[in-house]
Amino acid sequence: MGELLDHIDSPADLNKLNQQELNQLAQEIRTVISETVAKNGGHLASNLGIVELSLALHHCFDFRYDRILWDVGHQCYTHKLVTGRRKEFQSIRLEHGLSGFPDVNESPYDAFTVGHAGTAVSTALGMALAKQLRGQSEKIVAVVGDAGVTNGLSFEGLNNAHLIKRQLLVVLNDNSMAIDVTQGSMAKYLVKIRLTHTYEDMKKTSQHILTHLPVLGQPLAEALVHIRQGLKTTLWPGQIFEPLGLRYFGPVDGHDLNTLIDLLNRLKQVDEPVLLHVITEKGKGFEPAQSDPRSFHSTKPFHLETGKVLAKSGEKTYSDAFAESLIKLAKNDQRIVAITAAMPDGTGLNKFAEQFPERMFDVGICESHAVAMAAGLAKEGFRPVVAIYSSFLQRSLDQIFQEVALQNLPVVLAIDRAGVVGGDGPTHQGFMDIAFLRSLPRMVCCSPADAPEMEQALDFALRYNGPVALRYPRAEIGENLGPAEEFRLGKSRSIRQGKDLCIVAYGECAQVSLEAAKLLAKDGIEAAVINARFVKPLDSEALKRILKADRPVLVVEDHALIGGLATAIQELAGREAIQNVQIIALGLPDSFLPHGTRETLLKKIGLDAEGIRQAGRKALLAKPKEISNSKK
Amino acid sequence: MGELLDHIDSPADLNKLNQQELNQLAQEIRTVISETVAKNGGHLASNLGIVELSLALHHCFDFRYDRILWDVGHQCYTHKLVTGRRKEFQSIRLEHGLSGFPDVNESPYDAFTVGHAGTAVSTALGMALAKQLRGQSEKIVAVVGDAGVTNGLSFEGLNNAHLIKRQLLVVLNDNSMAIDVTQGSMAKYLVKIRLTHTYEDMKKTSQHILTHLPVLGQPLAEALVHIRQGLKTTLWPGQIFEPLGLRYFGPVDGHDLNTLIDLLNRLKQVDEPVLLHVITEKGKGFEPAQSDPRSFHSTKPFHLETGKVLAKSGEKTYSDAFAESLIKLAKNDQRIVAITAAMPDGTGLNKFAEQFPERMFDVGICESHAVAMAAGLAKEGFRPVVAIYSSFLQRSLDQIFQEVALQNLPVVLAIDRAGVVGGDGPTHQGFMDIAFLRSLPRMVCCSPADAPEMEQALDFALRYNGPVALRYPRAEIGENLGPAEEFRLGKSRSIRQGKDLCIVAYGECAQVSLEAAKLLAKDGIEAAVINARFVKPLDSEALKRILKADRPVLVVEDHALIGGLATAIQELAGREAIQNVQIIALGLPDSFLPHGTRETLLKKIGLDAEGIRQAGRKALLAKPKEISNSKK
Repeated sequence: MGELLDHIDSPADLNKLNQQELNQLAQEIRTVISETVAKNGGHLASNLGIVELSLALHHCFDFRYDRILWDVGHQCYTHKLVTGRRKEFQSIRLEHGLSGFPDVNESPYDAFTVGHAGTAVSTALGMALAKQLRGQSEKIVAVVGDAGVTNGLSFEGLNNAHLIKRQLLVVLNDNSMAIDVTQGSMAKYLVKIRLTHTYEDMKKTSQHILTHLPVLGQPLAEALVHIRQGLKTTLWPGQIFEPLGLRYFGPVDGHDLNTLIDLLNRLKQVDEPVLLHVITEKGKGFEPAQSDPRSFHSTKPFHLETGKVLAKSGEKTYSDAFAESLIKLAKNDQRIVAITAAMPDGTGLNKFAEQFPERMFDVGICESHAVAMAAGLAKEGFRPVVAIYSSFLQRSLDQIFQEVALQNLPVVLAIDRAGVVGGDGPTHQGFMDIAFLRSLPRMVCCSPADAPEMEQALDFALRYNGPVALRYPRAEIGENLGPAEEFRLGKSRSIRQGKDLCIVAYGECAQVSLEAAKLLAKDGIEAAVINARFVKPLDSEALKRILKADRPVLVVEDHALIGGLATAIQELAGREAIQNVQIIALGLPDSFLPHGTRETLLKKIGLDAEGIRQAGRKALLAKPKEISNSKK
Repeated sequence: MGELLDHIDSPADLNKLNQQELNQLAQEIRTVISETVAKNGGHLASNLGIVELSLALHHCFDFRYDRILWDVGHQCYTHKLVTGRRKEFQSIRLEHGLSGFPDVNESPYDAFTVGHAGTAVSTALGMALAKQLRGQSEKIVAVVGDAGVTNGLSFEGLNNAHLIKRQLLVVLNDNSMAIDVTQGSMAKYLVKIRLTHTYEDMKKTSQHILTHLPVLGQPLAEALVHIRQGLKTTLWPGQIFEPLGLRYFGPVDGHDLNTLIDLLNRLKQVDEPVLLHVITEKGKGFEPAQSDPRSFHSTKPFHLETGKVLAKSGEKTYSDAFAESLIKLAKNDQRIVAITAAMPDGTGLNKFAEQFPERMFDVGICESHAVAMAAGLAKEGFRPVVAIYSSFLQRSLDQIFQEVALQNLPVVLAIDRAGVVGGDGPTHQGFMDIAFLRSLPRMVCCSPADAPEMEQALDFALRYNGPVALRYPRAEIGENLGPAEEFRLGKSRSIRQGKDLCIVAYGECAQVSLEAAKLLAKDGIEAAVINARFVKPLDSEALKRILKADRPVLVVEDHALIGGLATAIQELAGREAIQNVQIIALGLPDSFLPHGTRETLLKKIGLDAEGIRQAGRKALLAKPKEISNSKK
C-alpha cells in the first residue's frame, strides 16, 4: 500500500507521525484511493479532496469516544483507511466487501449508515444533546459538504443548533461542487467567497483565528470581534451561519494539514456550536479528476494513467431511453420542462439540458423543493418532469401528497434507480416507491419494459391530466418486446400466451419473466406473461380474468413484497371476492439489502429468469391436479 | 356583517374605498372573524394579525391574474371574506361549508389547497418560473410566516430564488409566534429584530424605502445601498436573506394599512425576487387572543365576551392518555425524552414539558429534523419519543427510513391525528401512515385501543430495541376494554367471541367494532372481535387460525384501504396460500376526504358501529350456507 499507511492500524497510530510524515501519508492515501477506485469504481473526486481534513480530524479527536458524522457519506474513504480497514479497502463496493459509505456494521467508527444528504447536522445535534443531558464531554463533529448544506434538512439542523450549550463542531467541506456544480444562491455565494479568497488570505485567516481564539473557558464573544475585524468582511459567510446560532470560522485551506490540526485542536475546546469553513479541491492530486471532477464524482472503473473509463458503456440504459424520449417529446411540446435535484448526469437530463437549456432546472439536493416547484409550474400549464432516484424521492412524499396529488396536477415523476441499485447499497435501494405512492388518491403508477414503452409511457404521462409516476431501474434496457398497442391508462399488455401458469410483471421484470417463460417451456410448462404496465390503476378487467382462470398467478416485481404489485392484486382479489386462486409473490424481502452488483443481488433474491422459473415450477408442483405429474 | 364589508363582493370593490374606509373595513373584518370563530372554532389569532396585510395585498394586486400563495394557509380568512365568500363565511370549517384553508375547489383566488408549512415559496417559484418562460407579466406573491420560513422546504425554496429573473414577492409575516412560540435560532434572531425596532423605527424604515426605491426599470443595487445606510444595521435580517438571492426590505409595520399599500405598490414593480419583512401582532384587536395567542391559535368555540372556551373538554382524548402515560413512564426512566415539531399543545407534550422541561425539545416546524435528531439521541442510548401528526409525518419518511429503521434505533413515533381528523380537512387527514411505514424493514406499527393499552403500548415501545410507531386518532379515548395481557410484539387480543363472523380491527376501531358486534348480536349474528394491536408484525398465528375458520373476516380500519391492515392480512393469506376465505375490508376510500366532523365523516364512510354492522350482515348474506337464512 504505502510505507506509512502500512503501519496505520488505528487512528492512534497517526499520533506517532510528525508533520512531514502526515503529509507523506496523505499522498500514500491518495495513491491507494486512486488505484482502488480505478479498479472498483466508486466516488473519487470527493475522496481525494478530503484526505487532509480526514487525517486532521482523526489526529485531533478520538472517535472511539468522540463521534464523527459524515454527511452523505461517500467521502469516507480516508476515514475507512485509517480506522482499521486498510486491508479490506481493495474490496470497497464489491460484494461482501467494504461499503462505499459509512456502515455501522463495519466499524464502531461509523456512527451512522448513511447515503442521503443533509442528515449529519441533525443526527450530530441529537448526539450532542445526549452528551449534554448526561454531562459527558465527548466531542461531536459533523462534516457537511457545500451541496449537502443547501439541503433543507441541514438548514433545519443548523437552525436548531441553539439547543446545544456545549461543544459541537460542524465542518463545512466546501469544494464548490456537489455531484454536479452546486446549485442555489447559497452555493453561488460560497463560490464568490472562494474566488475572492486566495491561499494567502486563507493562511492569514487561519493564523488570525489561532492568535485570537481564547483558551478553554474564556469568553468567546470579544475574541470573535477581533477575529472578524482582521478579515475580509465584504463577503463574510458568517452572516448566514451566525444568525443560525453557530460561531463561524473561516474560510481556511483544507489541504494545509498542519494548520488544520492546529485549528481543530483549538476549536474543539470551544464550548458552543462552531462552524469551520474549509475550502478543498475535488480530485486533488489526481489530474484527470481534478480537471473533470464531475465525471469522477462517481465513476466506473477507469485506466489509471489516462483516466479513461474502462467499462464498455455501449448498452443503452433505462435512463438513456428516458432522456432520449423526453428530448423527442419536448421538441413538439413547449410545455415540457425538466427538473433534477443535483443529478443531471445520473438521470440523463444533462442531455435534455443540452437541447433545452432554458427548460431544465437543477435545484440542488432539494428533492422536496423539486416536486413543489414542479407543482407550481404545472399549475401554470407546464408539464414538468421531475427525475429523482427512487430512494431520494422518499424526501418528496409530502409534496407529492399535498402539492401534486391533492391538486391533481400533471406532474410527471420519473423515478430512476427504482428497485435494486447495486454498488451503492442499502441507502440507495429503491424498494418502496410504489408502496408509498400507491396510497395517494389520483396517483398513477406505471413502468416501461423496453425503449418503445419508455417513449409510450412518457408520452402517456405527459398527456394525462394528473400526476403520473414512472419507475425504471438502474439497468440496461432490454430488447424491444415488439410492436404493441399504445400506453393507455390502466391497461396491461399480454406478451406471451400459456395455459399452465400466468406471470404478471412490469418494467424490466416483464422482460425477465419472458425469459423465464421460455425456460419453463423447456420444462413443459406453458406460462403466460402479462406486462401489467400499471400498478395503479390496475388493469382490473384483465386481472380478474387471470385470477379466475384456475392457474397459479406468479407476480414478479423489483420492489418490496410489502405494498407492491402483488399486494395490489391481492387487494383486487379481496374486493372482487375472488377466492380460489393461488397468488405467488416474488419481490424484495422485508430487510435492507446490502451492496453488490445488481445482477448478483437479483439472482440471490430469485428475481432472475432462473429464480422465476423455479418459482413457477414450485407453484405447479403445489397443485397436483396440474400438469406437473403428466410431465414427469 | 358590517356596513362596508357588505359591499365587498370581490377585491375590486376595495379600490372604491378611501384610506379611512379601508381601516374601518379592517375593523369590521376583525369583528366578523372573531364572531365566526367564537361559534365554529378555528384559527383565530393568526387571522386577526393579518387583516391589514391581506387587504393591502388585495388592494395592490389583482389576483384574478396575479397569484397569491398562502403558506400553511390557516391565515386566509380575510382573503376569503374579500374574494366573494363573505356570505358563506359563517359556514367556515363546518360540513359542506367553507374550508378553513385555501381550497382550489372554492375559488379561483385560491391557487393551492394547502395546510402544511413551508411550501408557498417553492410553489410560487414554480409559478414565477412559468411566467418567466412565457414572458408573462402577472405578479406572484408568497406569504410566509416566521414559523413556516424556518421549515427546511422554505429554505430550499429561498435558496432557489435565483432561478427567477423577474418579479417575485415573498412577504414574511413575522408575528414572532408560530402555533406555539416559534423555535429555532432564526426565530430568536427575528425576535431580537422585533424587540429592537419600535413602531417609530418601522415607520422610518417604510418612508426610507419609499423615498429611495427607484421607479420601474431603474437599477436597484445603488438604491439598496442608500436604503440600508439609513437603517438600523446592527441587526439586519437582510444578512440571512440576501445571500439567498432575495432583496430584503423591512422590517415594517404590518398594521399600518396605508403605508403597506404604498410599499406594495412600489415593490411589485421590482423585477427581481424581493422579500418584505412585515411585523404583525397575533390576535390583534381581540384582547383575549392578543394576550394569549397560543390558546387562540386554533380554538374550539368560545364565549365572545370572556374568551372562555365553550366546549366541554372533560373527556380524555388519545393525546391526553399519551401524555399521561409518557409522563408516568418517564418518571422511572431517565432515558425517555420527547420531541415535538411545533405542536406541544396539540400532542399533549406541553404537559410533559411541565414535568421534565429539560427532557422535551420543540424543534419548530421541522418534522424531518425532529426524526433525525431523535435518531442521534437514540444512538447515544436515549429513548426519544417523537410526537407528530400523521399527515405531517409524511415529511419524515426518509429520515424514518435512513436514520431510524436502517440503523435499527429505538425511536418511538407517536403518531397523533392518525385517521380522519375532521375540521382541518384533506391536508390533515392521516390516512397513509401505515402504508408508508409498513414497507420499511424493522418497523413495528401498533395502536392502542384504550387508555390502559396506551400505557402498555408506550411501555412496550420504550422497551423495544428498534423503531416503533404508535398511531392514534384525534378523538376521545373510549371506555376501557377491561383487563388484558400485556402488549407483546406482534400479539393480538381477542375482545369478543363469536362463531359467525370475525371482525379484526385495532385502536379506536376495535372499540367501535365491539359496539358493532353488540348490534349484530341483536340481529342474531355472533361476531368475534380481534384487537390486532399490531399491523406490523402481524399476529400471524392468530390470524392464520382466523383465516382458516370458514367465517367471513371483516377488517375495520381508520386508514386508507390501500396499504393498511386489511392489505397486510391479504398479503399474509397469500404467503400462507390460504384461499377459501372472504376478507372484507372497511377503511378510507381512495380519495381525498373533505372537512367535516370526524363523526359525520366516519359515519359516511361506514366506519361507525352501524356501518360495520351493515357490512357484517352483508358479508353473511353473501354466504348463503351461513346462518343468515336460519335467522330470517
